[in-house]
Amino acid sequence: MIQQGEIDAKFSAFSEHWRPKVIASLNGQEMKVVKVQGVFPWHVHDACEEMFLVWKGRFRVEFRDRIVEMGPGEYVVVPRGVEHRTAADTEAEVIIFEPAETRNTGNVVDETFTAPQGVKI
Amino acid sequence: MIQQGEIDAKFSAFSEHWRPKVIASLNGQEMKVVKVQGVFPWHVHDACEEMFLVWKGRFRVEFRDRIVEMGPGEYVVVPRGVEHRTAADTEAEVIIFEPAETRNTGNVVDETFTAPQGVKI
Repeated sequence: MIQQGEIDAKFSAFSEHWRPKVIASLNGQEMKVVKVQGVFPWHVHDACEEMFLVWKGRFRVEFRDRIVEMGPGEYVVVPRGVEHRTAADTEAEVIIFEPAETRNTGNVVDETFTAPQGVKI
Repeated sequence: MIQQGEIDAKFSAFSEHWRPKVIASLNGQEMKVVKVQGVFPWHVHDACEEMFLVWKGRFRVEFRDRIVEMGPGEYVVVPRGVEHRTAADTEAEVIIFEPAETRNTGNVVDETFTAPQGVKI
């Protein structure tokens, strides 16, 4: 089966925040789309890097010692083992690229923010 | 080191066609940018999938039994082991996700099209 799609159509298909949706799977990795607004909990991924590519809006990745502010077309790779949190003052649309089975809150389980994995759209 | 960048700036930094540039590395995978124009040789990647996300222009991936035509924001994952070629009638800008060490011409070595691997920008 050939996976194909259109990013804007994927973002249009849901409205909730902080709930990544898988739009493609390849080589043990997943491409996900997520809408974000507000501030996500601090966490760390000990076993993998994760990449954020901003599609719409303003989005930031905060580390303990710096903040990476981004707009559309800007990306950052969070190194494994580095504590971080994500945030957006107003709604933003973000593409995530990371290994399958990556929990969005990393080492943390948060009643509000920990999302089900493997949800496709 | 935190990898970060801006897609348009990466594309502005080179002009040649069919020469992918690595803009981020994570989990054994690479995100690359490539400018394309014309028709690429038929080839197959026996060991991995590769994903194309169109950034600018019109781009197509041709399989032996179908053609996937795409514009900005559209993507396709080429399954492993499936013969394909890529093409663009006028210059297009494309983002690639695939494992590090993936030869752009797959099982083929082509004097014109086979590109050096691991070239960063």
